[in-house]
Amino acid sequence: MIRARVTITLKPGVLDPQGKAIEGALGGLGFAGVASARQGKVIDLKLEGSDRQAAEAEVAKMCEALLANTVVERYQIAIVD
Amino acid sequence: MIRARVTITLKPGVLDPQGKAIEGALGGLGFAGVASARQGKVIDLKLEGSDRQAAEAEVAKMCEALLANTVVERYQIAIVD
Repeated sequence: MIRARVTITLKPGVLDPQGKAIEGALGGLGFAGVASARQGKVIDLKLEGSDRQAAEAEVAKMCEALLANTVVERYQIAIVD
Repeated sequence: MIRARVTITLKPGVLDPQGKAIEGALGGLGFAGVASARQGKVIDLKLEGSDRQAAEAEVAKMCEALLANTVVERYQIAIVD
C-alpha cells in the first residue's frame, strides 16, 4: 500500500476570495501580522501496489484528469510511504 | 516575511463525503488502484516579522481560534521560509 499526498494550490495571480475571507477574519480576531492568506486543498490517497514511481505517475494522471483544474491550479505530489 | 503552510485534515474515523466522492469519481474514470481518498485543506500564510518560533506559535493560535475545527480536524504547521 502506498500513501500519496496531493497538494493543490491556486496559481499566483488567480483571485482567491476564500483566502481573502480568512485574511479578513484573522484581522478581525486581532491577528495583526498576516500579510496574505491563500487557501488550497490536500488529497490523501491510499493506493494499492508497491511501485512508488508507478504510483506517482498514476497520481499525476489523476490530477490532470480530475483532481486539479490545471488552468488555475497547480499540484504537487508527495509519496509519503 | 515568514511563509507558513497550515495543513488541515480530518481526524481518522471522521466521515469524509468529499473524499468518498473523489474515490468514486476516480474509479469511474478507470483508476482502479485507489483504496481510499480523504480531502483536507491547506492555507498558505505570509506573516510579518522574522522570528520563526514566534510565528509558529501565532499560527497555532490562529488554528485554534479560526482555521481548524479541532473537534473533527487536526492541523500541522510548517514554516516554509
